[in-house]
This record gives sequence, structure tokens and C-alpha cells, in this order.
Amino acid sequence: MALNKPKIVVLGAGYGGLMTVTRLPKHIGTNDADITLVNKHNYHYETTWMHEASAGTLHHDRCRYQIKDVINESRVKFVQDTVKAIDVQNKKVTLSQGDIPYDYLVIGLGAVPETFGIKGLKEFAFPIANINTSRQLKDHIELQFATYNTEAEKRPDRLTIVVGGAGFTGIEFLGELANRKPELCRNYDIDESLVRIVCVEAAPTVLPGFDPELVDYAVQYLESKGVEFKIGTAVQECRADGVTVGKKDEEPEEIKSQTVVWAAGVRGHPIVEEAGFENMRGRVKVNPDLRAPGHDNVFILGDSSLFINEETERPYPPTAQIAMQQGETVAKNLGRLIKGGQLEEFKPDIKGTVASLGEHNAVGVVYGRKLKGTPASFMKKVIDNRSLFMIGGLGLTLKKGKFKFF
Amino acid sequence: MALNKPKIVVLGAGYGGLMTVTRLPKHIGTNDADITLVNKHNYHYETTWMHEASAGTLHHDRCRYQIKDVINESRVKFVQDTVKAIDVQNKKVTLSQGDIPYDYLVIGLGAVPETFGIKGLKEFAFPIANINTSRQLKDHIELQFATYNTEAEKRPDRLTIVVGGAGFTGIEFLGELANRKPELCRNYDIDESLVRIVCVEAAPTVLPGFDPELVDYAVQYLESKGVEFKIGTAVQECRADGVTVGKKDEEPEEIKSQTVVWAAGVRGHPIVEEAGFENMRGRVKVNPDLRAPGHDNVFILGDSSLFINEETERPYPPTAQIAMQQGETVAKNLGRLIKGGQLEEFKPDIKGTVASLGEHNAVGVVYGRKLKGTPASFMKKVIDNRSLFMIGGLGLTLKKGKFKFF
Repeated sequence: MALNKPKIVVLGAGYGGLMTVTRLPKHIGTNDADITLVNKHNYHYETTWMHEASAGTLHHDRCRYQIKDVINESRVKFVQDTVKAIDVQNKKVTLSQGDIPYDYLVIGLGAVPETFGIKGLKEFAFPIANINTSRQLKDHIELQFATYNTEAEKRPDRLTIVVGGAGFTGIEFLGELANRKPELCRNYDIDESLVRIVCVEAAPTVLPGFDPELVDYAVQYLESKGVEFKIGTAVQECRADGVTVGKKDEEPEEIKSQTVVWAAGVRGHPIVEEAGFENMRGRVKVNPDLRAPGHDNVFILGDSSLFINEETERPYPPTAQIAMQQGETVAKNLGRLIKGGQLEEFKPDIKGTVASLGEHNAVGVVYGRKLKGTPASFMKKVIDNRSLFMIGGLGLTLKKGKFKFF
Repeated sequence: MALNKPKIVVLGAGYGGLMTVTRLPKHIGTNDADITLVNKHNYHYETTWMHEASAGTLHHDRCRYQIKDVINESRVKFVQDTVKAIDVQNKKVTLSQGDIPYDYLVIGLGAVPETFGIKGLKEFAFPIANINTSRQLKDHIELQFATYNTEAEKRPDRLTIVVGGAGFTGIEFLGELANRKPELCRNYDIDESLVRIVCVEAAPTVLPGFDPELVDYAVQYLESKGVEFKIGTAVQECRADGVTVGKKDEEPEEIKSQTVVWAAGVRGHPIVEEAGFENMRGRVKVNPDLRAPGHDNVFILGDSSLFINEETERPYPPTAQIAMQQGETVAKNLGRLIKGGQLEEFKPDIKGTVASLGEHNAVGVVYGRKLKGTPASFMKKVIDNRSLFMIGGLGLTLKKGKFKFF
């Protein structure tokens, strides 16, 4: 029997994939299935902390941990490789170094930046996406500051940072950047008044979906830290020397900047699209049991999935919280598929959403209560620690958690 | 009488200028003269430590201190400004923000990189010159390492560092860089075997003037750390994408590199040349009492001066050690000029020369004894601490000194 054990392959060690493999051993026995986890890196990184690594307020090593430290290696085989293609007909995944067959597949390949075809963004703007992009952006900003004082002719564009997007990531990055500005200026002998941080958002508000009171609080706080907001203003083009931005029906404005950050959108990983699943921007609208329509042996979760809120008929936001809950459901449903039993429907349990505004401030809603300032900042750290605890237990939480609460 | 006090103006807060103003109050009373120190920055930096700040093994703030912390502000007036010109006819110095007159002038404006007209070096190579250039070079190297992993097509030139010059600065920088390589690779997830550090030196040996046994030791040690040496090989051209190097009568070689460091020479500050002093590459061959020939009221010291060793008929090397000793003599001679007495001839007292090879190794000669390895490294730190002690006393030494001896 052991020779014919079904093969479960999990693609991606993000919040969803990692939760799936840490929970799977509870639902299936050693002899029930082989479990393989595939991930490009040997580490998991906290996608939701990348604004900190990008601004340089938290070292990128604090935002990642070794996958082997959280999986049960006697039950889960870890393969470090890049997924090149998924072949649902022949039930195999092509990696850089060969193919692996599966009987059951879990896709949690995450998101990639979406530039909506805006000219020059792909070439010249920095995304806030992963460990690699975050430390690059941090180092790039530092090099701009360092270079400023080596040049006889002073270039304000070296000290001008433009952030495209005032959604969750954009606002959280602005909070960190505004917080780091004094230290950056001290370190590089630069007058704080020379630094310009501009946020450009095409939508009519920052933090769409947030309560207007919290939005106002966030904007006022960031403005008090020197952030300029250009709301209802679109990035029209990005070049090596800056951006062109503009409001509808108004003359466009050029902002010279060596650092344009694009935080205005993500889409699902293109592999999902290429595999032939019906999708919207790389996201598959999954069945209530989290399987891909028409594919009884393929689960899709996290940023690779779209899960519809039946009350609002709109998709739930792609958060770490939901991805982890999906991982728990996927693990349970895989157990039932293999050992028998009815598959469970996924029911998100949204405990809250908090956007940080730097180390000591935040806005959000937790258990239905609006929070801002210190209580919100406290809850943000609780939320950040929670994902560590869910995946790696107390040990990981103590090692990588955030405990500077006040 | 106080209204007509002579005015002493000291240009530059390097080793020589700072030593002059810290010693002057011993030789002249409050009513004897007004003393003004002019410096571009509000800090002194340890020129001889810039290889560490440039490689990132020592933070640049550890390599500088506030000028106000070491001068006696009741006796010495500090003016933070840039010297634009020296007018010896009218006895005045032009600063960015106005002129200041002097009766006695001390010039210690230091050195600037010398590129010997080699094409592209000024535009594309990084000097190891001061705090500004050092933190820029450090940040530039880090950004190259950070960028490597963000690119689909891997570029070895991002991990290739070419150092032009195997003299004192070049060798000391190579030692630090080789030492930092493992940490850089760990921090940026890069395989150490991908990093290439190449030293190109036109002269037939590294560390010219050093004992051949010490030279061999240094080369073997750095080679064991992965440094490639191309000796007797000139940098012929530097471009944005690397350098062309070649031995005489041989086919030139192109090395693709995003980081070309030029450590093969310095010259005296151009202001000295522009002021009309007879000079060689910006250095004035001074009289035995350290005055400029034909200028009885102008002392020149440090990298701005050339002081001839009468035994060898060659100039002494421009070291911090000699600059500080010159500062002591200049202070004494200014006292005698103003209060009367015969001027003293400068007699250098060369205690030794040690080139570091990273944190725990070095080669050199101290009190006539050849040293290598740990004893040399120990002496190097003693020497580094000595300049702190000479200028700022025990307090500064404890604050900024190097005490990790083994």
C-alpha cells in the first residue's frame, strides 16, 4: 500500500501553503499520503511586513524564517525549486530541475505586482513585493541619500520619494518611511526639510474600504510627518528621472524623483493563468470547498484564489488572515478527500484589519471596534505575532515576533 | 592692544590643522592672537580609517567626531565653511559666505584623488576619500548585491569589484572587503563563489616601499581570502560597465564590473595650486620650519605639504603621523613668530607604518621591527587610537577607539 500512497504537492510556502503543510499531518496519517512542499526560497517571508523591510525600519532577516524550522520533515518533504508550469491534464508540475507528479495539488503561489500597463512602471518603479525587492529598495534609498552629499550640484530628485498607491501597502510604507526619515537624515548629514515624500493615488480616497474617520486620522498623521498626498491623481508615466502625474482634465505635473515606489496593486501569479484555470488577473474564483471549478483534486488559496463574500457578492480582500484560514480548511478537506467524509465549506472569520502608520501608530477595526493610535498599533503587533504563532508556535513567535508594544 | 591682536587662520580640521589648534593655546596667550579654524564640515574624520567605512566594516560615524568636542572654544573660533580661494597678496581667505583676513595662515587642506588623466576614472570610479565617498561606496556595493537577486538574468558584474591600486589604501580596503564578503553574501543570499575581487596595480609590486617578506605575506593572505592580483597591470580606461586593464605589450583585458574603486593616488588640494604657491601636484615643498618659501606668515602641513627627507632626498610619505607632528611644530613656531624666538626645524619621528589586512591581520614596521599577523594588527589599532589620544585625549579615545584587539 505504501507504494501507491497518493501524492499531495503544495506549491508555495506563503501563509496559505505553509499553513496547509503544518496542519496536514493532523488530518492524514503517515501511510495516507506523501506530502511535498515546493518553494523558490528555503525561507518563508512575512509578505505583510515588507513595508518595514523596504523602508529599512526592520531588517529583512527579521521578516523571514527557514521553512525547515516550521515543517515536520518526517512528514513533509521540502523541495526548493521554482515552479515553471502546472499541467493539470497529466497531473504534474514542472520545476526548474524536473517534473513532479501529483494526485492532489494545492496552489498558493501568491501575487506579483500589477502595473496596469502604465508606461515605465515595470522598468523604473520599485515594487514592495518580497525580501529581494525590499532590501533592494531600502539600499537604493540609502544610496540616493549617500550620493546627495558627494555631488557638487545638489539634486533634489535624490531626496524625493514618490509612492504610487495609498492602499494598505502604500500607507504602511509611508508610515515607516516617515518614521525613518529623521534617522536617514542624521546618518547621511541631510537637512530633513530637503526630503520630499509624495503619495499619488488615483482613487478618490486613501485606504479605500476604511472608515472615513480612520482615513482622516491616517492622512492627518502622515501629513504631520511631512507626507504630501495627491489624491484623485493618477501616475501617467514613469521614467528614469521621475513620474508624470495628473488629475483628470488637468495639466499633468512632472515630479523629478530617483525613487518611485509602486504600491498600487497586485495580481495573482501568472503560472495560474498559464495553467489554464479560468481566472481574473491571475486569481481563480474557487468553490466553497476551495477547489478550482472543474478540478476535484486541485485546491487554490491565498492570493492565487478569489473567494466571494456571499453577503456583499464581492471577493474578500486577499489577506494573510484569510490565506491562513484557507490553509486550515484545505488541510482538513484533503484529509476528507483521501480518507473519506464530506468536504467542509470555507467560512472566513475576519477578526479585524489594522494598517500601521509607523512603529507607534495605526488605524483599523478589530472585532468590529474602530481603533487608532496606540491601541491600534498594539493590535497590529498582536496580528503580526499571530501569524508566527499559527505557523511556528511559541518558539517562532518569541524568535521573530514584535514585542516593542509602546 | 586686544583690538590689534594678530589673526591666525587655520584652514582644514584634518590631522595637521586640528593638532595645530589644540596645541596653539599652549604657546600663545589669550591676548597674543585670535585663532580661527575653518573647515567644510563640523566634524573631523579619520582619513586613515576610510577603507573601513568604505567596505562597511566600521560605521562612518565611528570614524568621525565633532570638532567642537576637541577644540577649546574659548580660544579657538570655529567657522564651518568651504575655502574657495587664498589671496596671499591681500592676506585673506575667501569662503563661500565671505572673506576673512589673516596675519598668519596655516594650510592643511588635505588631498584629493588623482586619476592621472586615465579616461573615465573621474566619472565612473569610486574614490576612498572622505565620509561622503565612503558611505556612498559602501551603499553602492550593498545595492549591487541586493539587485543581483532581483534580476531574472544574473549579472556577474554586480558581484565583481575592481580595486585600482595596491598601495596602502588599496591593500587596506581589500583586507576589509575580503573580511566583509561572507557577511555580505549571507545578508544578500549570494553564494560566496560568485563574488570576484580583483586588484589591478601598475607598479611591479604591491605595497611599494614595504619589505618584500611583508609584501609576500600580505599578498598570500589576501589571495587566500579570494582576492585576485593583477600586478604590473595598468587601468587603461574605466567605463560605466567596467574597466580595460593591461600589461605593457600585451593584449588588454576587459573586466565587467559595476564597482570600480580608485585607490591609486592622491594629490594636494587644488586651492593650494590656485593660490599661486610653487607646488608639485598640489603639494608645496616647505622650508624646514614648515613655512612656504617666500611666505613668512604661511605654514603648510599634512597632504598640502612636501617635506624632504634629507638623507634620501625624497619626500616623506604624507601620513597622519607626520601631519600631527607638523601640527605640533607649527603651533610652536607660530608662538615664536608672535612672541619672539627662533623658529624650530621640523624633525619627523617615524615610529612605524602598519597596513591592516582586515580586522585581525596586518603587516608593518614599528620601531624598526617587522611585524605581521596579530602583533601587527594590535599595533595598527594602537596607532589608530594614538591619533585620537593626541587630538582629543583619553575621553575621545575611549569613545571612538578600537579595542577589539584579538
